[in-house]
Amino acid sequence: MMEWTKHNLLDLESLQKEEIDLILETAKSFKEVSTRDVKKVPALRGKTIVMLFFEPSTRTRTSFELAAKRLSADTLNIASSTSSLSKGETILDTARNIEAMNVDMIIVRHKSSGVPKIFAENLKSSVINAGDGCRSHPTQALLDIFTIKEKLGKIEGLNVAIVGDILHSRVARSNIWGLTKLGANVTLCGPSTLMPVDIERMGVKVEYNVDKVIKQSDVVMALRLQKERQEENFLPSIREYSKVFGLNKERLKAAKKGLLIMHPGPTNRGVEVSADVADGEYSVILEQVTNGVAIRMAVLYLLSGTRTTVEETQG
Amino acid sequence: MMEWTKHNLLDLESLQKEEIDLILETAKSFKEVSTRDVKKVPALRGKTIVMLFFEPSTRTRTSFELAAKRLSADTLNIASSTSSLSKGETILDTARNIEAMNVDMIIVRHKSSGVPKIFAENLKSSVINAGDGCRSHPTQALLDIFTIKEKLGKIEGLNVAIVGDILHSRVARSNIWGLTKLGANVTLCGPSTLMPVDIERMGVKVEYNVDKVIKQSDVVMALRLQKERQEENFLPSIREYSKVFGLNKERLKAAKKGLLIMHPGPTNRGVEVSADVADGEYSVILEQVTNGVAIRMAVLYLLSGTRTTVEETQG
Amino acid sequence: MMEWTKHNLLDLESLQKEEIDLILETAKSFKEVSTRDVKKVPALRGKTIVMLFFEPSTRTRTSFELAAKRLSADTLNIASSTSSLSKGETILDTARNIEAMNVDMIIVRHKSSGVPKIFAENLKSSVINAGDGCRSHPTQALLDIFTIKEKLGKIEGLNVAIVGDILHSRVARSNIWGLTKLGANVTLCGPSTLMPVDIERMGVKVEYNVDKVIKQSDVVMALRLQKERQEENFLPSIREYSKVFGLNKERLKAAKKGLLIMHPGPTNRGVEVSADVADGEYSVILEQVTNGVAIRMAVLYLLSGTRTTVEETQG
Repeated sequence: MMEWTKHNLLDLESLQKEEIDLILETAKSFKEVSTRDVKKVPALRGKTIVMLFFEPSTRTRTSFELAAKRLSADTLNIASSTSSLSKGETILDTARNIEAMNVDMIIVRHKSSGVPKIFAENLKSSVINAGDGCRSHPTQALLDIFTIKEKLGKIEGLNVAIVGDILHSRVARSNIWGLTKLGANVTLCGPSTLMPVDIERMGVKVEYNVDKVIKQSDVVMALRLQKERQEENFLPSIREYSKVFGLNKERLKAAKKGLLIMHPGPTNRGVEVSADVADGEYSVILEQVTNGVAIRMAVLYLLSGTRTTVEETQG
Repeated sequence: MMEWTKHNLLDLESLQKEEIDLILETAKSFKEVSTRDVKKVPALRGKTIVMLFFEPSTRTRTSFELAAKRLSADTLNIASSTSSLSKGETILDTARNIEAMNVDMIIVRHKSSGVPKIFAENLKSSVINAGDGCRSHPTQALLDIFTIKEKLGKIEGLNVAIVGDILHSRVARSNIWGLTKLGANVTLCGPSTLMPVDIERMGVKVEYNVDKVIKQSDVVMALRLQKERQEENFLPSIREYSKVFGLNKERLKAAKKGLLIMHPGPTNRGVEVSADVADGEYSVILEQVTNGVAIRMAVLYLLSGTRTTVEETQG
Repeated sequence: MMEWTKHNLLDLESLQKEEIDLILETAKSFKEVSTRDVKKVPALRGKTIVMLFFEPSTRTRTSFELAAKRLSADTLNIASSTSSLSKGETILDTARNIEAMNVDMIIVRHKSSGVPKIFAENLKSSVINAGDGCRSHPTQALLDIFTIKEKLGKIEGLNVAIVGDILHSRVARSNIWGLTKLGANVTLCGPSTLMPVDIERMGVKVEYNVDKVIKQSDVVMALRLQKERQEENFLPSIREYSKVFGLNKERLKAAKKGLLIMHPGPTNRGVEVSADVADGEYSVILEQVTNGVAIRMAVLYLLSGTRTTVEETQG
């Protein structure tokens, strides 16, 4: 298998297929660690990993923090509300100051696209994008791809639908990059007001009829609908959205056997996915969460440039 | 001694006398750990313990966090303000997502009674109640009982008074369950507006004259008075409360030698307890805090189901 | 070299020259630790260190937290907003309760001068002042002195200027104490409205012409200007301040070769220091940050009273 050489993880478009495969393979080894009685390996002992979140997040931050701790790294949380930013410092200044404390990795989330890239261009610490604007959320897409591959045995040739607010979704964009690179057929579905113009250029199909999409898909990924979209006039109403695009039991009667229903969370039950579907036989939503820790362990491990192999670290 | 078999700690009413005794004995061993130069044992290394607090708390959260760290567990703090709840997820969803990250124990505090029970019924992780509504706060009662037993050598036959806002107090309820189970005579004292109807059914006496109560008690436990009670018209005034029910030097002249004054904290000095009494000879308030860490270490240790004995972990 | 005997670090005025030297020497050893692949020594394993910050802080809190973690201590963050203080407890009560959990060290920041001293007088835990009011910020001055000594080889006889809002600056006060004790010639410069009356009694010179100051200095330390000072009428405007006292490229043409430009951060770029100077050849601002971790490791280590030598801990 190829050797890992990248210093940062900013997005999936800059990864080769083989690099994605390496992350997925590495995650497989690490997934087992979290099922042990002692969920900890010494791989990143003495490394310092900072989570610099300019947007609130429980799920992603927690997942990264657990991943880091299970690798024995030291972690530090810096949330924007308590950061020096309120004192008028630029965010790059903040990052440079953090780096100056000999920090190995900075995991950053920011509402503006491109912040992780600016960090990577200016810092010696490894930078991991934990979500930037509407652009990219690479570890989310990696955990989604990992989950699909674990459940269905492959990515190539699968029909994967992404349903919802494509326009504002970094999860959608990262999944499109990753899934198409690995050979899946990706179909996007959602209100036309929330569908980016010319998105087909990314190598995907667009289909506005969710029932048609469900029928032909191996995987349906629902995106979280921000309630603000209604106030911003992208939608007539949340209820209308749910009626037209919501995944519910009735609608899934037309599904292929073995369909996977996915959601990056947190779900609005009864909006994107009905409660019975979220908890139902097709749903792998909680498995995505479990796999998220494994993927983040793999990413932290590979970026750390530790020379030992995964097997050695499992002593 | 009996073996521990419970998976959760929700309240004291569901514990047998022997189980309470086992926690107290285990805490005795762990109390010593916190006095060492190296305050740490490897008992829970590689375990993941999440503190999920929907109500603000310094004391209880800190005590649990220190207990977990001294057992070498990995800890994660999730406060409601930063959680996905603000994104419209149900709290059970939040808990299920946390569990999906292979979390061993979830310590939960919530203003609604019953939330820990709902968690326990739906999760595989161990659930520890760190306070729910006005119902239960089992580790507080355990540390109170531990402190009394340590100081007075027994619980059985002691006269223990609980003074204050019984109506809203989970600390009172948990202590009533625990103390009466272990054979203490419990007397409640407080404003009649803050005394639950029919509370005698729990096997306690009610007495409205605090001076009479002090005279006959081995232990007087003052409860914290929430300032909001005045606005809610439960009380004419905080000052009036203090005059009628506050524990002060004058009043304690009638006390038995060796009386214990307790308070779950944080104290409103000059309201429930005068400053000189809080810092005086009868007070064991700070010892309660010290013992809190030991009790929580014991609870985390027993719930972890680790097979090794306490002695082995002290290497 | 002398042995360390102090139990607290409250300010620099109560330290002897030899004690400052011992901290600087110890920091030198620890600086190397943060450049290792495994940035961790077991020196403070099993110690509990609490950061009790009543004022927001990223930089100082983070630096202390990293220092503690690299020494393998267990750390706990308590910020004022989540503390029991909102429940009406006095801050000394809060501190006593924290100490009762067998905490080894309490690192405290408070907007009122003297709070760390009150803690030290009442607690058995070691108390470290992380900034109190306008009075003292000893670890900041120590890291500044460390940086100067590392860069220029000595402190004695150097001309060090401190430029800015001297009146409100605990950084200035601590640096004056430390630098004069070690034999530097300290000159203060800033708006007369922000210059304390009779400050010369501290053994410093006052000079209002920043260009004259720059010309004769080996080190120029710019202080952070709080934007609030304008509203409080200490200044006609921020822009005016910048014009008269801001360190910029033009002004630095008159500087000695090898001048050091320092700033405790966070910088207001374009106010105290222009962006090109902050990032320029004279600036050691980020090195100050790096050295901050080393100084704090040294302080935590020395205060811990650990008998082993630094060399032994580096196994």
